[in-house]
Amino acid sequence: MHPYELTLTEAAEKIGSKELSPVELAESVLGRIEAVDGRVGAFAAVTADRAMADAKRAADDIAAGNYRGALHGVTVGVKDLVDTAGIATTSSSKTRADNVPNADAAVVERLSGAGAVLVGKTHTHEFAYGVITPTTRNPWNLDHIPGGSSGGSAAAIASQMCHGAIGTDTGGSIRIPSAACGTVGLKPTYGRVSRRGITSLSWALDHVGPITRTVHDAALMMNVLAGYDRADPGTVDEPVPDFTAGLDSGVKGMVFGLPTNYFFDNIDLEVESAVRAAVDVLTGLGAQVREIELPMTETYMSVEFGILVPEASAYHQKLLREKADLYTDDVRVFLDAGELMLATDYIKALRVRTLIQDGWRDMFEGLDAVLAPTLPSTAARVGQDTFNWGVEEPVINAYVRTSAPGNLTGLPGLSVPCGLSNDGLPIGLQILGKPFAEPTVLRIGAAYEAANPSAGKVPTLG
Amino acid sequence: MHPYELTLTEAAEKIGSKELSPVELAESVLGRIEAVDGRVGAFAAVTADRAMADAKRAADDIAAGNYRGALHGVTVGVKDLVDTAGIATTSSSKTRADNVPNADAAVVERLSGAGAVLVGKTHTHEFAYGVITPTTRNPWNLDHIPGGSSGGSAAAIASQMCHGAIGTDTGGSIRIPSAACGTVGLKPTYGRVSRRGITSLSWALDHVGPITRTVHDAALMMNVLAGYDRADPGTVDEPVPDFTAGLDSGVKGMVFGLPTNYFFDNIDLEVESAVRAAVDVLTGLGAQVREIELPMTETYMSVEFGILVPEASAYHQKLLREKADLYTDDVRVFLDAGELMLATDYIKALRVRTLIQDGWRDMFEGLDAVLAPTLPSTAARVGQDTFNWGVEEPVINAYVRTSAPGNLTGLPGLSVPCGLSNDGLPIGLQILGKPFAEPTVLRIGAAYEAANPSAGKVPTLG
Repeated sequence: MHPYELTLTEAAEKIGSKELSPVELAESVLGRIEAVDGRVGAFAAVTADRAMADAKRAADDIAAGNYRGALHGVTVGVKDLVDTAGIATTSSSKTRADNVPNADAAVVERLSGAGAVLVGKTHTHEFAYGVITPTTRNPWNLDHIPGGSSGGSAAAIASQMCHGAIGTDTGGSIRIPSAACGTVGLKPTYGRVSRRGITSLSWALDHVGPITRTVHDAALMMNVLAGYDRADPGTVDEPVPDFTAGLDSGVKGMVFGLPTNYFFDNIDLEVESAVRAAVDVLTGLGAQVREIELPMTETYMSVEFGILVPEASAYHQKLLREKADLYTDDVRVFLDAGELMLATDYIKALRVRTLIQDGWRDMFEGLDAVLAPTLPSTAARVGQDTFNWGVEEPVINAYVRTSAPGNLTGLPGLSVPCGLSNDGLPIGLQILGKPFAEPTVLRIGAAYEAANPSAGKVPTLG
Repeated sequence: MHPYELTLTEAAEKIGSKELSPVELAESVLGRIEAVDGRVGAFAAVTADRAMADAKRAADDIAAGNYRGALHGVTVGVKDLVDTAGIATTSSSKTRADNVPNADAAVVERLSGAGAVLVGKTHTHEFAYGVITPTTRNPWNLDHIPGGSSGGSAAAIASQMCHGAIGTDTGGSIRIPSAACGTVGLKPTYGRVSRRGITSLSWALDHVGPITRTVHDAALMMNVLAGYDRADPGTVDEPVPDFTAGLDSGVKGMVFGLPTNYFFDNIDLEVESAVRAAVDVLTGLGAQVREIELPMTETYMSVEFGILVPEASAYHQKLLREKADLYTDDVRVFLDAGELMLATDYIKALRVRTLIQDGWRDMFEGLDAVLAPTLPSTAARVGQDTFNWGVEEPVINAYVRTSAPGNLTGLPGLSVPCGLSNDGLPIGLQILGKPFAEPTVLRIGAAYEAANPSAGKVPTLG
């Protein structure tokens, strides 16, 4: 077994016990990137020199007895929307081709402080404004998209090109590519992780979180990422737990809500049956399931886009004036549209959002989590514009539709792989929890993962 | 001495010791209203029957040994923007002439629960959208305005027509009339008091709080008003202290910031010298003063109105379509303007607001409070459009200019009377504190009030 094949948890154990050197691990990972990223295209930039310097320093620190914990010496990839001091940060946009930040984003500071080894910047759909990530292919089938916008991070994790990755999620951009690429992706509660130093898409909906191969890996990442930061007015000064504590305690006695509406309305039958089978696995482990009806579902998409679109346009207004021709067409069209929206419409979207949040709070009474498909379909083919469930639905709408509830409510949402379709593409189970209940969400994910017969499968990249 | 002349604190003591009956107090107050409100015009409606019923019930409860605390049996007036079940609530607008709510607002529920006696609904500038309150006159000089928008509440308190009153404050609407009428007015921290059941002007800037004759009275009101309410998404689940605890502990050792810019830039010299004299009183009591420079002052007015105007238009959009001709002209012009504003401009105002909040947080390091004039002038004459300090400034701009920092930052702001001008009009000292530091702000106000030679003066209504 090559070191790059280890999960983050396994690599951390071997590094902690000095069975494996961070240098050896980094060399193995860089070799893997060299071997497969030409086909996958997950990385906007591979930071090989930085990685070897980080790994050498980690090895020296650990040899000197200064082991800093599970992320010390393990490799990470960071979405190219996230600032890295001295390293180009392009948001996968020609408008930012020459952008080299002076300072690390908060999450990069935290990863570096924990001794993680940065192997590269992963591709995003331009400015996180889309779900395709056109630079990158799906490692399970290179004719398919990886999803987005954190498509590079999920593809890198699925291809074993790093052990942990950072994604951001405004309308599903952590969970969408995680489901499409068969990785674990956690969108934490709004306010749990600082967004300082990350290019904003929509400040009211933006989240940042980990993409990993296993649920335990995600918990280890969260232990480093979570925490209040006064530089991000959205963060909340909430106590930060140990996200690995109780992770393996199972789901016995828990009560899960299973929506009868919305999530299963337009869905690929193969995805639906995989998700329902995953729910059965959890009930087999002693959980109960209660049917629930989501409130105000007819408003979700218009409120999601009614907030996101003008916020993105406000953020990009100056750059759009200066470099309109350097944006890709699909993003520029969205940005132009947002400049025409009226303040009163945006404000009404915000007001309806609070009603949605209120309705979800009521709905969550007595529940430990809500279970749902992460996406209504597996990964679209490259160039595919729509899904067809009797009605045509654009790919972006289908993907955002099942993701948006997590962004509108701010509730934590985890995508865990729950099997493969007949044509070998991953399917994701979505677990949504109460505010700041990431430990519960992760615990449910871990219980499912431990019982899931297909867990740990990786693409062959044949 | 007539019972109506008692402060809330004095009335509460006499009721608690059974020296005074709530019925006797209510009769005295209703007589006072009968005698002077024809000239002042503070009340949109006097609820004499309700008051006598409340008073009778309070008297019976107290006789039966069920004394509920300081507000039991004392009289209150409630701004007509605030819902009262079964009692017309017009927001002083013809568009709401027939509006009779089914339920009490949260603050009315709390006042009733504490046994307060409702004597009437006080006038507001139509929908709280202005600082004049044209229905009402200033009790110190009937040729002058009471300020607004809670002009009726402040005029009622100043004229001794009730013991405590409810105001709301979006751009100064508690503090402006308090300064103009010589009352104590507290705009609590954003999130401290529930706004459920109160007609919104601007949800991001709206606050509700007490107007009273003394600082101790305001503390007693806050003990009843404060607290989390999940029905108001703006409220914060913060522990509620006893606002009277430590109220008389003085200011020795405290450090106050005194702005060198903005607040004193365009100001009546008589007001400036009264405020500086008040600051000297506080330093004489053992506090220190440090000169401070407010950050980003050039943005305050455009951010205040850039948030308020479109939010008000979003709220009123439907009613404006139905009853445009029933709005007063000045309010309709504002509402029409807000419908033209772009979402991107509103969003930029919100973003700048977070920078202002951040700058104030830095500025507040090491300070217990910031001291400033509440208003740059005493009450304008009825019909007066502008002030002239070398430049002409509309009355609304002048009043909102010194008030808006409290709304933009959400910080608690107290206006305390600090003397009279040569022509006998009140002047207000503004005390701004840290988030949820109402106890400190009230303590400073109480220390000043105890030392202020002109405290307790009331208008003669001659």
